[in-house]
Amino acid sequence: MPVNLNPPTPESLHPVAGVRLGVTEAGIRKANRRDLTLIELAPGSRVAGVFTQNRFCAAPVQVCRQHLASGDIRALVINTGIANAGTGAPGLAAANASCAAVAELLGIEAAQVLPFSTGVIMEPLPAERIAAGLPACHAALKADGWFEAAHAIMTTDTIAKGASRRAASADFSFTVTGISKGAGMIKPNMATMLGFVATDAAISQVLLDQLVKEVADESFNCVTVDGDTSTNDSFILVASGQAGNTEITDTGSSDYAALRDAVTTVARQLAQAIVRDGEGATKFIEIAVSGGATKDECKAVGYAIAHSPLVKTAFFASDPNLGRILGAIGNAGIADLDVTGVKLWLGDVLVSENGGRAATYKEEDGARIMEPAEILVRIDLGRGQATGKVWTCDLSYDYVKINADYRS
Amino acid sequence: MPVNLNPPTPESLHPVAGVRLGVTEAGIRKANRRDLTLIELAPGSRVAGVFTQNRFCAAPVQVCRQHLASGDIRALVINTGIANAGTGAPGLAAANASCAAVAELLGIEAAQVLPFSTGVIMEPLPAERIAAGLPACHAALKADGWFEAAHAIMTTDTIAKGASRRAASADFSFTVTGISKGAGMIKPNMATMLGFVATDAAISQVLLDQLVKEVADESFNCVTVDGDTSTNDSFILVASGQAGNTEITDTGSSDYAALRDAVTTVARQLAQAIVRDGEGATKFIEIAVSGGATKDECKAVGYAIAHSPLVKTAFFASDPNLGRILGAIGNAGIADLDVTGVKLWLGDVLVSENGGRAATYKEEDGARIMEPAEILVRIDLGRGQATGKVWTCDLSYDYVKINADYRS
Repeated sequence: MPVNLNPPTPESLHPVAGVRLGVTEAGIRKANRRDLTLIELAPGSRVAGVFTQNRFCAAPVQVCRQHLASGDIRALVINTGIANAGTGAPGLAAANASCAAVAELLGIEAAQVLPFSTGVIMEPLPAERIAAGLPACHAALKADGWFEAAHAIMTTDTIAKGASRRAASADFSFTVTGISKGAGMIKPNMATMLGFVATDAAISQVLLDQLVKEVADESFNCVTVDGDTSTNDSFILVASGQAGNTEITDTGSSDYAALRDAVTTVARQLAQAIVRDGEGATKFIEIAVSGGATKDECKAVGYAIAHSPLVKTAFFASDPNLGRILGAIGNAGIADLDVTGVKLWLGDVLVSENGGRAATYKEEDGARIMEPAEILVRIDLGRGQATGKVWTCDLSYDYVKINADYRS
Repeated sequence: MPVNLNPPTPESLHPVAGVRLGVTEAGIRKANRRDLTLIELAPGSRVAGVFTQNRFCAAPVQVCRQHLASGDIRALVINTGIANAGTGAPGLAAANASCAAVAELLGIEAAQVLPFSTGVIMEPLPAERIAAGLPACHAALKADGWFEAAHAIMTTDTIAKGASRRAASADFSFTVTGISKGAGMIKPNMATMLGFVATDAAISQVLLDQLVKEVADESFNCVTVDGDTSTNDSFILVASGQAGNTEITDTGSSDYAALRDAVTTVARQLAQAIVRDGEGATKFIEIAVSGGATKDECKAVGYAIAHSPLVKTAFFASDPNLGRILGAIGNAGIADLDVTGVKLWLGDVLVSENGGRAATYKEEDGARIMEPAEILVRIDLGRGQATGKVWTCDLSYDYVKINADYRS
């Protein structure tokens, strides 16, 4: 059961002018499942992306990086079922064949297509099934296809993930709509499994490239389910330029600020949805670290807590076995950390200070604060001004069940 | 159910001349449980140790470091139930009080006592119960007390852990006997939760200090259950000097080699026993990495695989979802890893090469090799001559159950 996560409705995902989506059942790995999505972008669209840092990055990630470098992207093609990762040269050929099939259908170049795959690693991608399914996707293309696409990119997700906003700066109105997928193998390092966000605002390529990184750092790069950075993580931001505004070229402008706020809000919703739907999740946990010497060390502390199986199982049990959090802080790799300066709160309860349990802490306070489905963990490292944030979930029986059964 | 791990018998743990052990039920945290162990060392014994790198290291670890620096250790005192970690200044006072109580009983100085604790973090240690229990430990001291001590230091262990060897160099015969405890919060960084090994061989302090590090790197520093480095990890090596040999002072000598081999063998058995009894473990997995540029990167790859919840759950399910291992290798932090040079075997089956699935690999081979309770994973990184080894276990429902229930 996802944690406080409602599925999007078709009406909640506003169309973005210049973007059309179509899905089909291509039988990539299993039958009777929507598993292929085509997203067509109007001429003049700009696209930016961030990708996994995993060295065994998937073939489609390698092709995306190449094609993005040459610019003028006009289509995205996404399959589930097979990740096309750990597939060597044949995997690259399959990803390129998928791009070529899209290009032929749309009358564009293969280099104008970005391919994405998600699913099982080290199994060959049947590119011929993608080619065979694409005409149905093409026939289904529509501006209000976001809802169906949100479903067609799911794997172990239990709920489709979409978010959308209509927003305005002083100068113009615009729309931001996005979808994401992912529930396990989630510790994005530059973006989640798959996240696609589009806006109709016009923005220069230079600023779009900057914006996608800024947004990723405040959204997808703050979430972790199990610490496993996927081979396929991709976060793509599209700006179709059809909102009618003067192209945004200045990061200091109010237009840029308004767009950044709206895109960040949508991306955060999508990123948090992945944690709320984390495999087996019963709790949503925000870890807010302050007082660090650097943002990196704050994030390291956040991830050390978020990745500790002992902390995660204690959250699952609602057990205020909070010394495990101190243990995780001590393991975050800060060699010169003075633990006597560290403070730990759960919600509004001060749990630890001066290297030990706070004098005011009572076990019943801990029990009370561990009970809810959403928990805030705050840490002050007491050594600087930097902050960092991580969102995660607990570790339950069902995480094991889902991952022991995934392929069967 | 531990994986191929038999409990020690009383007869299998040979006494070490100069070492006596006694245990009692001190009621540290729960009643009717042997939870306090005293180990008395004959005058002239030498002691060396390695300890956790966790910054929230326990009070007893801090006291051990101080007391070892001054030398002439004559006793060890070990309690279970409470870890005395995350306990601040009162925790240090409790650890020192325990040493003082031992010192009074044995007529030695408090600085000649090493304290060890294991159990729940961030709860106060009742030093008065240790003091009250010590006379019973003292009365029970005996040379063949290893078997009872192995039981008295257990927490979530399901089986007591002990190993013993009688060995000889060309010059003399000697004994090595040890005990360990630990099942979760296991990713030792300088030693496991608790490991105590003693020999009657005579060896200089300088060489003993070197030997304990060499042995730890080949034993306790190769194991991981859940990646959580404990606050209390301690590995202690005692040399009572009563074997009658000329003191070993040369690392090039055959005596040193014989002693190192025997101590390493015992320590490896104790370290592997911790993994075999890992919380919820159903599989014992050896990850052997070769062809690395450095030993550190080989270990990093080993640990990335051993800590991946996705890999661990696949082992639990005996599911040859082996792409997850490639994903973990790609996450090991080797920025310039050329994945096309990486080879992966399970047992004798080549699974992956050239960045993808090996042409000779068949799914039924993978299924066959994932079935047994002991599995060898071999990786050749194809970029150097260094090697590294990690031992781990799978991640099962029972790991979650044990850690969600631990305090209740």
